[in-house]
Amino acid sequence: MPAVRIAPTRAVRARNLLRTVQNHPPSCPCHSNPTYHQTQSSPHFHRHRPRPRSNGLAQGLRRLATPSPLPDYAFELAASSIRFGPGSTAEVGMDVVNMGAERVMLVTDPGVAKLPVMENVRKALAQQGVKWEEYTTCRVEPKEASVKDAIAAAKPYNPDLFIAVGGGSAMDTTKMMNLYTCNPDADLLDFVNAPVGKGLPIRGKLRPLIAIPTTAGTGSETTGTAIFDLTSHQTKTGVAHRAMKPTLGICDPENTRTMPSAVACSSGLDVLCHSLESWTAIPYQQRRPRPTNPIERPAYQGANPISDIFSLQALKSVIKYLPRAVADPDDYEAQEQMLLAATLAGVGFGNAGVHLCHGMSYPISGMNRSYMHNGYDVSTPLIPHGVSVAVTAPAVFRFTGPSNPDRHLAAAECFGVDISNVKQENAGEVLSEALKEFLVKLGDQPRGLKQVGYTRSDIDVLVEGTLPQRRVLMLAPGLSGVQEEDKETLTALFEEAMEY
Amino acid sequence: MPAVRIAPTRAVRARNLLRTVQNHPPSCPCHSNPTYHQTQSSPHFHRHRPRPRSNGLAQGLRRLATPSPLPDYAFELAASSIRFGPGSTAEVGMDVVNMGAERVMLVTDPGVAKLPVMENVRKALAQQGVKWEEYTTCRVEPKEASVKDAIAAAKPYNPDLFIAVGGGSAMDTTKMMNLYTCNPDADLLDFVNAPVGKGLPIRGKLRPLIAIPTTAGTGSETTGTAIFDLTSHQTKTGVAHRAMKPTLGICDPENTRTMPSAVACSSGLDVLCHSLESWTAIPYQQRRPRPTNPIERPAYQGANPISDIFSLQALKSVIKYLPRAVADPDDYEAQEQMLLAATLAGVGFGNAGVHLCHGMSYPISGMNRSYMHNGYDVSTPLIPHGVSVAVTAPAVFRFTGPSNPDRHLAAAECFGVDISNVKQENAGEVLSEALKEFLVKLGDQPRGLKQVGYTRSDIDVLVEGTLPQRRVLMLAPGLSGVQEEDKETLTALFEEAMEY
Repeated sequence: MPAVRIAPTRAVRARNLLRTVQNHPPSCPCHSNPTYHQTQSSPHFHRHRPRPRSNGLAQGLRRLATPSPLPDYAFELAASSIRFGPGSTAEVGMDVVNMGAERVMLVTDPGVAKLPVMENVRKALAQQGVKWEEYTTCRVEPKEASVKDAIAAAKPYNPDLFIAVGGGSAMDTTKMMNLYTCNPDADLLDFVNAPVGKGLPIRGKLRPLIAIPTTAGTGSETTGTAIFDLTSHQTKTGVAHRAMKPTLGICDPENTRTMPSAVACSSGLDVLCHSLESWTAIPYQQRRPRPTNPIERPAYQGANPISDIFSLQALKSVIKYLPRAVADPDDYEAQEQMLLAATLAGVGFGNAGVHLCHGMSYPISGMNRSYMHNGYDVSTPLIPHGVSVAVTAPAVFRFTGPSNPDRHLAAAECFGVDISNVKQENAGEVLSEALKEFLVKLGDQPRGLKQVGYTRSDIDVLVEGTLPQRRVLMLAPGLSGVQEEDKETLTALFEEAMEY
Repeated sequence: MPAVRIAPTRAVRARNLLRTVQNHPPSCPCHSNPTYHQTQSSPHFHRHRPRPRSNGLAQGLRRLATPSPLPDYAFELAASSIRFGPGSTAEVGMDVVNMGAERVMLVTDPGVAKLPVMENVRKALAQQGVKWEEYTTCRVEPKEASVKDAIAAAKPYNPDLFIAVGGGSAMDTTKMMNLYTCNPDADLLDFVNAPVGKGLPIRGKLRPLIAIPTTAGTGSETTGTAIFDLTSHQTKTGVAHRAMKPTLGICDPENTRTMPSAVACSSGLDVLCHSLESWTAIPYQQRRPRPTNPIERPAYQGANPISDIFSLQALKSVIKYLPRAVADPDDYEAQEQMLLAATLAGVGFGNAGVHLCHGMSYPISGMNRSYMHNGYDVSTPLIPHGVSVAVTAPAVFRFTGPSNPDRHLAAAECFGVDISNVKQENAGEVLSEALKEFLVKLGDQPRGLKQVGYTRSDIDVLVEGTLPQRRVLMLAPGLSGVQEEDKETLTALFEEAMEY
């Protein structure tokens, strides 16, 4: 009698697939060094051209003459100037005058508009005799319509300087206002990330932008990235170019004291994933294609020796201070350190990029039906951004472990794990376990996608929602760049992320 | 019969004095937290006003209303954008076009003018159809006359962008050309550091400046500092303001391959001292006075949590890679890492400052009578800058140890010292010994001031030459800010630095 063959469940199949991918990385160096962009557009993907040893300008010019299937050979670090200190918001009026500006647009969202920080900014401007107009209706989690509304408000006033006060939503919206005020004839999609938009590089200088964060999470005060929900294309995307970065970020720990504990927590989880994802992103020398003009070198360029310093330091700070900041709303030292960590992580991921947690988070938060996160006082379903990135993190870093065991072990060590006897092949597993323990101890975190309302029947749609996030997926170690293969990998990752 | 009392030698007296200062720091918190600036100018030095807890704008404004004897409460991080990659010099023509410039001034010194890097820059500009003029007569170790000559060359051409190619001398000279081209009616002393010059803050934007370093040392590609010999006032000083920092630093390791081994070594010693001095500078919250306008916050503002990250990473890299780069001119990896370390240290000290080694180095190199450093092909006496800062380092860090034993021990640990059983009071001694060993192993380093031709009879003049370096002395831990006391301390330090 033949043995009964029991079909494996989807979960078991997913685990098996992940194990296969992890333990048998594709032998083709192109596939193990993902080049997502390249495989979409170039038939030369498999030509395995060796990188020429650059030797003076002749080779340099040859290298730069035509779009190239070669990987990049340089990285660029750009960050806003950062001022950090309790009470430093009061200096903003003088900053405006020092920058020679006279017509300011002050931007925030309706919630922050009521907080003391706005009153402080107004007084600082008034004291210096600066004229300003206010736009206080930024949408939290900006959508295409809200961004268009904000741009429409900025254009006729034509300010010579922008001040953004708030979290990532207000800062990102302000960046968009600045970009399209300076490029008034551009179509919204001109600068939006490819493949959804045209992804044109930004030429010419934008107006000065001063960003004053009121949360410790996004790092948007240092980055050239603006994210919003492009509803017409049913995807969360945005614009990313270092020309968009604020001129000055004023990180004033007094402005984050108003954060409710739940907001401090989910913002902090965003910092955690910024640091871990940028630390484990593919190295910049593996990102393809090499740009033909430096203006085309993306801000999200892969891990590099300078972003590494920021990412790892931010990771250490989050692990040390986030639990304290969440547990005790009066722990100002922890709050200050979290604001600093958010900014450091901003410089890190702003110049290296994020990958799977962020790529997968967009459909997770976008397709949410009914989950309402504890501690958030909202009337509609909401998975806070930080929660939506952290919920897949244990699955993601278990998967990415084999791409660079040393980095995953170094990250695990930051969590306090004794890695002296851990085998390289267990690096991802060990980091994943450390992450789970950290998240559980923080409290109030969904232990997987099931707890935010997803079932296995949603996975195909979640995968379809992730695949267009090429800008971040191209930095993910372990993806092959071949759409069907990556679909399978992402499916397995979402399966794995269902519960922990 | 009474015991014969033998008068102690100057050296013994100096050691005793240093020991006294080290082991009995002044009990007045003002004196142990040096406030050099303040004590020179304010009768309120001893009023010990408590720092008010900032609480909204009212206090903020009160705090900012008048020049204040309070210490600073914020720090600011500003750095040039940095591109790093072998061959990336070839991109500079496109950068010029991307920045919208049309009239470029290309600046270098006569030595670098003959190197391949200049040919590469010219080709990159020509290929993009950019017009440029060249100024190739920057003086190595710029003097007042050479700086004035360079400014006079730039003004009539009135370029809309500057490119500096070379070491610190060429980059610093170019910064001065940019500053005074944009402020054509200003007197040279208007922006020169107080107390020698007026130290006016720089208002308005300067022209874009692209810096292409050909040495791995100065870090000038990321800083707003320009140093030169103000011969009319017999002092080495300069201009320092973050508005002077280059727009973009192109760090191309192919451009440092031409460095002779001796130049690699002394440049690397500059990096070593940049990192150690910024790491051990007084914290920014102890620097006085608190600026009344953020434009007056100096770039050299004291150690802060972001500069710390750069300084410590740079220190680790120098210790690892400088000996390799010096020993083997074909060790390209070590050269690349040293170029990166120089840039990281530049961000560190550019935002925190340097102190005693640099302050004491200016008279050491300026008053040199006959010392000619091995490996330098020059016709006149020369103590390379890096040698002149490193020669006092063992004495300096022995002295500064008690100001922050933990930081000195952390630095010693970077040199490979097992610090697990070192007592806090020995931190300076241990770091000093580690430094000596490192310098001796590097080879060709003078073991103290005697070996560069100084005797004890020179000390008074060396001290007098150091005292005007207020901008850096105010960041030195352990100086009291009282001129007569600091004279004694500096005298003891120069004695101690005579030989090791």
